[in-house]
Amino acid sequence: MSKINIKEKFSLFNEHWTPKVIAESNGQLVKIAKGQGELVWHKHDNEDELFMVIKGQLILELKDKTVVVNPGEFYTVPRGVEHKPTAKEETHLLLFEP
Amino acid sequence: MSKINIKEKFSLFNEHWTPKVIAESNGQLVKIAKGQGELVWHKHDNEDELFMVIKGQLILELKDKTVVVNPGEFYTVPRGVEHKPTAKEETHLLLFEP
Repeated sequence: MSKINIKEKFSLFNEHWTPKVIAESNGQLVKIAKGQGELVWHKHDNEDELFMVIKGQLILELKDKTVVVNPGEFYTVPRGVEHKPTAKEETHLLLFEP
Repeated sequence: MSKINIKEKFSLFNEHWTPKVIAESNGQLVKIAKGQGELVWHKHDNEDELFMVIKGQLILELKDKTVVVNPGEFYTVPRGVEHKPTAKEETHLLLFEP
């Protein structure tokens, strides 16, 4: 495989809340997504979802709390847990999922 | 789980080439490591190793090429592939491994 430049990969698309696969490692996918505005409440029954913020700010509403994730931080939403992601400004995310 | 701040986790240790587990997601471990100087040639028979550079620069020698990984970039060394990591200055890495 070749080296992946995350910033360069972000320059290739503009859709929001539409993860793009940029690599695979040990059967898991490395994805990037741009978020802006609100996404609907949802959950993933069979997989944990790791959100790492590269740029901007991700607000993750959970049923019992709200987590604000800034650049250099990440948060894993465990499988089965309902969540609603929101980003006020355009936010760049790195995701790890099976 | 709680939110993880990567920079804060790096402030908690000083050893080189000694990965620390900071989170788990879908059976894979998120680790961070500080690298400086040369590590020995080695390989992992059963797992791909994803190196993401947060700070500094990682030089990955492979048998057929040398890959220089800068901040914002990552490279996955496939299972079974011999590699020798080197960092001239202290380098901060994020690793994903089973």
